[in-house]
Amino acid sequence: MGICDRLGKFFRRTVPLANKLRSYSRQDALGDAIAGLTISLAMIPQSIAYAALANLEPQYGLNSAFAGCLVYVVFGTVKEVVIGPSSLMSLLTLEFTYRLNVDFAILLTFLAGFLQMVIALLKLGVLLGYISTPVISGFTSASSIIIVGSQLKGMLGIQFKSSGFVDSLVGLKKNIHQQRDGDTILGICCLIGLFILKAAKENLAERYSKYPWLKTALVTLGTARNALVVFASSCVAWYYQSNDMTVPFITTRATESGIPLPRIPPLSTTFQNRTLSFTDMIDELGTGPMTVAIVGVLINVAIAKKFADGPVDVQQEIATLSLCNMFGSLFQSIPTSGAFTRSALIGASGVRSTFASLYSAILSLLAIQFLGPHIHLIPRASLSAMLIAAVVVLIDWETPRRVWKRSKIEFLAVVATLLGCLLIRIDLGLLCGVAVGIARLTYKWARPSITVDRVQSDFGMCVVVKPDISLHFPSAEYFSQFLLKEARKEISGTPIIIDCECVVDSDYTVATTLNLLQEIFEKTGHKLVLTNVPPLCKKKWKMGKIRETLISPPGEAFYAAFGKKIDSTENDETFQLIGT
Amino acid sequence: MGICDRLGKFFRRTVPLANKLRSYSRQDALGDAIAGLTISLAMIPQSIAYAALANLEPQYGLNSAFAGCLVYVVFGTVKEVVIGPSSLMSLLTLEFTYRLNVDFAILLTFLAGFLQMVIALLKLGVLLGYISTPVISGFTSASSIIIVGSQLKGMLGIQFKSSGFVDSLVGLKKNIHQQRDGDTILGICCLIGLFILKAAKENLAERYSKYPWLKTALVTLGTARNALVVFASSCVAWYYQSNDMTVPFITTRATESGIPLPRIPPLSTTFQNRTLSFTDMIDELGTGPMTVAIVGVLINVAIAKKFADGPVDVQQEIATLSLCNMFGSLFQSIPTSGAFTRSALIGASGVRSTFASLYSAILSLLAIQFLGPHIHLIPRASLSAMLIAAVVVLIDWETPRRVWKRSKIEFLAVVATLLGCLLIRIDLGLLCGVAVGIARLTYKWARPSITVDRVQSDFGMCVVVKPDISLHFPSAEYFSQFLLKEARKEISGTPIIIDCECVVDSDYTVATTLNLLQEIFEKTGHKLVLTNVPPLCKKKWKMGKIRETLISPPGEAFYAAFGKKIDSTENDETFQLIGT
Repeated sequence: MGICDRLGKFFRRTVPLANKLRSYSRQDALGDAIAGLTISLAMIPQSIAYAALANLEPQYGLNSAFAGCLVYVVFGTVKEVVIGPSSLMSLLTLEFTYRLNVDFAILLTFLAGFLQMVIALLKLGVLLGYISTPVISGFTSASSIIIVGSQLKGMLGIQFKSSGFVDSLVGLKKNIHQQRDGDTILGICCLIGLFILKAAKENLAERYSKYPWLKTALVTLGTARNALVVFASSCVAWYYQSNDMTVPFITTRATESGIPLPRIPPLSTTFQNRTLSFTDMIDELGTGPMTVAIVGVLINVAIAKKFADGPVDVQQEIATLSLCNMFGSLFQSIPTSGAFTRSALIGASGVRSTFASLYSAILSLLAIQFLGPHIHLIPRASLSAMLIAAVVVLIDWETPRRVWKRSKIEFLAVVATLLGCLLIRIDLGLLCGVAVGIARLTYKWARPSITVDRVQSDFGMCVVVKPDISLHFPSAEYFSQFLLKEARKEISGTPIIIDCECVVDSDYTVATTLNLLQEIFEKTGHKLVLTNVPPLCKKKWKMGKIRETLISPPGEAFYAAFGKKIDSTENDETFQLIGT
Repeated sequence: MGICDRLGKFFRRTVPLANKLRSYSRQDALGDAIAGLTISLAMIPQSIAYAALANLEPQYGLNSAFAGCLVYVVFGTVKEVVIGPSSLMSLLTLEFTYRLNVDFAILLTFLAGFLQMVIALLKLGVLLGYISTPVISGFTSASSIIIVGSQLKGMLGIQFKSSGFVDSLVGLKKNIHQQRDGDTILGICCLIGLFILKAAKENLAERYSKYPWLKTALVTLGTARNALVVFASSCVAWYYQSNDMTVPFITTRATESGIPLPRIPPLSTTFQNRTLSFTDMIDELGTGPMTVAIVGVLINVAIAKKFADGPVDVQQEIATLSLCNMFGSLFQSIPTSGAFTRSALIGASGVRSTFASLYSAILSLLAIQFLGPHIHLIPRASLSAMLIAAVVVLIDWETPRRVWKRSKIEFLAVVATLLGCLLIRIDLGLLCGVAVGIARLTYKWARPSITVDRVQSDFGMCVVVKPDISLHFPSAEYFSQFLLKEARKEISGTPIIIDCECVVDSDYTVATTLNLLQEIFEKTGHKLVLTNVPPLCKKKWKMGKIRETLISPPGEAFYAAFGKKIDSTENDETFQLIGT
């Protein structure tokens, strides 16, 4: 294969768009256009809200939608994935930068993207397997609860900075006297409006399928519910303003409008009258970039697998997300990822290829340009209502319920993650869950279940002991005590056979323990024989007292146990048949 | 069984001494007396040195020997164990209290004893199984190296406070100009003397076994080498002093003599002109009590197992060590444990029961009373020489060499422990080693080895896939990708049978992964069948797509795979035979 062919193959693999364009039909173009417009209708107000969640001006959310969609068009592989700001990414951005300025958020985007590239290139994605489904469920629910907690203040018209669940609640209690009726009423109205429109789409539309025009209207209203609520509440603000009255609720901070120009991510910043260098900034961000990178990869891989038709090229998906973030940081983005709700919506809208994202990118750009000057009219309470409506449905009741029925320890992992995220910090909560999972797995090595058979062989009675998994250091002491207890029940001289059929591997600690055991058995007059020992263990165990004679080949354990020579013509019974 | 009988049984179990005294003969008494005297000869100078190692006055070491031996006489079960100060315990005391005063050391003893009681009562001793033999080896070697590093300054006559290996070396380099020739010469002479006397006992004595008096003399000299060296070097100091000359080397700090009176462990202290409360003191000690408790239990259990004739009552041994420390803290002790060297010595001296420890306790008390006024004559350099000679032989070269030959990852655990202890901190080094061990075990769950067989059944070709261990969340993704890859090699419609014979348990993550897999296989037209599923997994896996029909009973997998009804008279082939 020539260098050109190799390059061509590499190009086709890393730029799936090239392949797609070859067979791109008019129908495809129409489908993508409709899907792209639909998703934009939902994503543009979302982007403004997610920026608000991260305590930033709206344009940063729109920039993210633009950059994410643009990169995914070229490098993405799953047509249902729409990259942009998301509730989890914004929450993490808030957690790690709420005391800092926007330069940190943009640097966070870049660093997270960089780490994601490292994950993709070193194929570290496999390590994500250590985060189990119950832990992900606990993490998602905790994030939703934290977001609801953080948005209550917006709904009540209270202003203070907070991060974390406890912090939000304490802040609310302390500042409850600031509560404003205008915001509260508007917020509740928006919330009710959003739920009604959603119900109209999800429940009513089906019922009126006889009237296609009514069904389409209901679905469109439901899909555009965020845009509608934002538009309606902004109109109220505009009405007050144009009549020179005080707007009775807090509106969004004014934003610099205009298309973002590419700029190198901030490598130093001035913050609280101090100039911070690049390393200072990294210090301030702490575990932020790592957490954002890992959570972003987790979400995206899960979405890609859920929606893709066939197997997913995980490396490519992680690398694409990385590029979305690194490219985004040039255009002043906050961290991006896919979102389950967006994928479900674009899938239902009949998307044909990742090309649909191009429309979202362009519309986001237009929104920045033309909505920009009017964004200051959007009431904060309606954004909060939008966020609350978006995340309460993400609280996962189903997984904990199912897990509880199956395994109490796995349920503990959910609870540990949930409480860790809510009470300590969101990244530490994730770690708590992983630790519970690993502790559970490690404990399995510590307590193998051991079957004991008393077998009458041709030469006399002997005890056959069979552990059901490999023997490693956590079980060494337990196994040795178990054998000593079994041996004490038998008269001196009874051979003890360890059947290692289920043992795959072992270690030095077990080797020394078996040696010590053999020393004790020599004193008490029991004979120890190991059989069915896999080659890997033979190498590790052969030392000191564990002599060649103690390790018997399969089928010769009884001969070894009673010190008999094997008559090869007679030995037609294999050891494996003993148990039957 | 009446309450009296129960109490009697409990008493006999917890106070083994009571049982022993019933059949205590004159011969036993003689044996114990000789062993007790022998061990005292070694232990008394050791105690002074170990106190010096912990940067404390000599009486604290002697107090520990007294208290430890006295308690062990009553509650101990293994006659070879001699509780007293030890190099590891003193090193840990130094690490955690070298910036503080002696009150902290005594409180450390009490808290460690208290935690050991918790370990004994809650049966947490089993958790020590997570510390593997290679990790213990690395930890022991690192401790010896740290002790040698900390004692070089004593040999050179330099004075500064240090903890940890790096700290000691940096301190040495900085203060090398203080080096005193008197101390250096004395230290080297002592070291040479100690090694010659040791060699005389270990090598020469055997050679002169024809002359019993010579052999006895050599063994006695060897056994008493520490006492001899201390006595000889003290005589030099006395000679200088009695002739009104300046002693050319540093001697031990003067000590308050007299038998220690019981006193409640210090619950507050005045340190650097600050009064510290009990909680302040606990804060200062940090992870000290936990580390001392765990390491103490580790050593003692290991020694008890090594020297006991039969199985060891581990709970009782841990509880006894706890009492030694708690009781010791009333008599101003530093933390205590057993020591391999002492057990070897007392075993060789013909000990008959734990009663021998009573002689050591009494002799330690006499030493405090009568040696006390002369202790200030003991040169520091000879104590340092004694410590170095005692610990260099503990550096374990054998285990790493053996481990290297067997498993490189286990060798990494040794190296991680060693470097962690030397470069970071001794307790964190231990944690590093444990972490490597747990990571290795967790990785085993992530990559099961999977065998694939293409089997021609009566109904057609099918693929039988068999993982060799239980499926848990770290392997879920790997296993699913593996199956997808295998399926892609086959034509659509080929059934895929997962043989779960080696699977013992599973979890929710695997259940959801299998469900997703089933969804994909339904699209690609492969049929998935699970067979030999253990009941535990059946309960955990049954959800969504994994319907009853997918889980086939053993021996019916082919029928299930091809959707055939079973004719029970024909089905005489069991599934297990397929592989053969």
